[in-house]
Amino acid sequence: MATYKLLLLPGDGIGIEVMAEVKRLIAWMNQNGLGTFETEEGLVGGAAYDTEGVAISDATMALAQAADAVIFGAVGGPKWASVPYEARPEAGLLRLRKDLGLYANLRPAICYPALAEASSLKREVVDGLDIMIVRELTGGVYFGEPKTIVDLGNGQKRAIDTQVYDTFEIERIGRVAFELARKRRNKVASMEKRNVMKSGVLWNEVMTALHAREFPDVALEHVLADAGGMQLVRWPKQFDVIVTDNLFGDMLSDVAAMLTGSLGMLPSASLGDVDPSTGTRKSMYEPVHGSAPDIQGKGIANPIAMLASFAMALRYSFGLGREADMVEQAIAATLDKGLRTADITSAGCKVVGTQEMGEAVIAEV
Amino acid sequence: MATYKLLLLPGDGIGIEVMAEVKRLIAWMNQNGLGTFETEEGLVGGAAYDTEGVAISDATMALAQAADAVIFGAVGGPKWASVPYEARPEAGLLRLRKDLGLYANLRPAICYPALAEASSLKREVVDGLDIMIVRELTGGVYFGEPKTIVDLGNGQKRAIDTQVYDTFEIERIGRVAFELARKRRNKVASMEKRNVMKSGVLWNEVMTALHAREFPDVALEHVLADAGGMQLVRWPKQFDVIVTDNLFGDMLSDVAAMLTGSLGMLPSASLGDVDPSTGTRKSMYEPVHGSAPDIQGKGIANPIAMLASFAMALRYSFGLGREADMVEQAIAATLDKGLRTADITSAGCKVVGTQEMGEAVIAEV
Ligand SMILES: CC(C)[C@H](C(=O)O)[C@@H](O)C(=O)O
Ligand SMILES: CC(C)[C@H](C(=O)O)[C@@H](O)C(=O)O
Repeated sequence: MATYKLLLLPGDGIGIEVMAEVKRLIAWMNQNGLGTFETEEGLVGGAAYDTEGVAISDATMALAQAADAVIFGAVGGPKWASVPYEARPEAGLLRLRKDLGLYANLRPAICYPALAEASSLKREVVDGLDIMIVRELTGGVYFGEPKTIVDLGNGQKRAIDTQVYDTFEIERIGRVAFELARKRRNKVASMEKRNVMKSGVLWNEVMTALHAREFPDVALEHVLADAGGMQLVRWPKQFDVIVTDNLFGDMLSDVAAMLTGSLGMLPSASLGDVDPSTGTRKSMYEPVHGSAPDIQGKGIANPIAMLASFAMALRYSFGLGREADMVEQAIAATLDKGLRTADITSAGCKVVGTQEMGEAVIAEV
Repeated sequence: MATYKLLLLPGDGIGIEVMAEVKRLIAWMNQNGLGTFETEEGLVGGAAYDTEGVAISDATMALAQAADAVIFGAVGGPKWASVPYEARPEAGLLRLRKDLGLYANLRPAICYPALAEASSLKREVVDGLDIMIVRELTGGVYFGEPKTIVDLGNGQKRAIDTQVYDTFEIERIGRVAFELARKRRNKVASMEKRNVMKSGVLWNEVMTALHAREFPDVALEHVLADAGGMQLVRWPKQFDVIVTDNLFGDMLSDVAAMLTGSLGMLPSASLGDVDPSTGTRKSMYEPVHGSAPDIQGKGIANPIAMLASFAMALRYSFGLGREADMVEQAIAATLDKGLRTADITSAGCKVVGTQEMGEAVIAEV
């Protein structure tokens, strides 16, 4: 059995608490011959700043480069509200994405039937929802230059951010989306603002050409990003795969996540290109939720998004699809038994803490 | 009684149909001594392109500059999907906003109790909702330069859009938001992505300083724009006034509009600075909905957003607050009587067309 090297980056806030449950799962899998995982651990975000003065150190980046997959918790919190911009907790996350070339961010928005009641939307609108948002993650306004604030004198400053997309960046994320759609319901909605942005015009043009050339069997529709946000709220089940840029992906995937009522449940995967010589790819897995400073340290955080992120790692990085299924089914079974963390509780359910939930899931695996 | 000059720009699709009801209302007000309005009419969007070869002509722009207010319908449609970028229908709208200096876009998101059932959200989440989104409308990525696509050779292109904000642009939109909040529930939520964008950093800094200097009596909170989108879906009633930039405002106001279940009901106002010598300001009023090419020409479009936009004109441009109230109350009364256009119909209501709805509202005034 192959040995896989994991770098665990718990980060800040509840990131630390939910990562503890992944460690428990890894240890259990190692013991029971379901895999051979070697783990190392590093600091990122506020935790790295406090100890190392940066949001992620070069040494930790080297570990990330050498790992077969990075498992990431969450970063940030009010404690670091006024650290220098370059050292803010999010800078660690952005550097990991950029330096590892993780351009494809997969964010499933799934509504677990057991939790449909927890959504602010009507049950019939979200029950059974299963969307995959494919967000471009290493380009656009997140990384484009110039990105600066200049002093104009007279008490005036000017802030500039730059949205940049090249053809190849749009093509490779489009390919990820079309390929995923083929394994799902064969539909892609590409979202941009071509009526206002030149990057939207190019995005639209490249997706259209790619579709015609390589994926004519997949249904493609173009949706303006603002209308897409509306449609997500109105009738989200019309979508299968949504592909969009970094900033629209940030906005739209958060809206989609909230629709499900299962924010504490949603995993994500960030993938780089497959290296043709090894067949492997750089990858990072993280929950969609943040560091939740308001509940940190209380032992009540929901570890399911983190555990489900690890399941995605099993599937996408190690080809352990069967093991991934086992973890995902264990999560569903635990919910079916009526166990809930505080964020997803409802009448007749048993409220448990982070550790109890983690142990219950492992007991089901 | 003062005479007011209105420029009517119906535009495309249902814009033409709903504008007909505003004309009916204006004629009725003129006849009954509720105002003296002189109207002129012009082309914008696809209609202008078909006749004049541009999305708005210089002659029409001159009329807009000379008018006391512009009443705008909607633009766009598949017919113009492949006109040159500079002549696309939206370019007419963008030129009006920019050249008239309409930097403050007010988008109320109100859930009419009679329509709460039409929302995809649970009744208790949206019933009684009353948010005001204040969107910056003449800056940001909509207008920043460079905005271009360059050919890099080798089949590669590069698209660039530029997000630019100066201190004064953020200050003046902030002032609009804080002043509105004082007449409402005294709360402002400022939304940006300071964790990723330099314009977010400056936005945050300027709002914080403006608040401390001029509006310490108003409650201010800073919300990351992605989290703001989530919170709008989770529990929108937590917000009073939301102030945000052009692109985030586009996304967030569409999500907010859809929450209400009343998209065909929502008006908007776009305002410039008050001219200290005349006490007047440039202004444009338009429904939040678009040109809806799928239902155009059928006589079924909902004219309420357009009529409510005209009510906003009465209030914000002509100081006719009492007359604005009359129109708004007539809309509510018409709904209470059970009249509905097709988009908002529900059991036990009478479905009427555009003209019938317009006439019914006027009968109530
Ligand atoms: C933390 C932040 C930098 C990040 C982003 O904006 O990408 C987050 O919102 C996300 O969606 O992963
Ligand atoms: C039509 C389009 C250019 C416009 C915008 O993006 O501002 C519209 O979506 C709006 O919100 O008024």
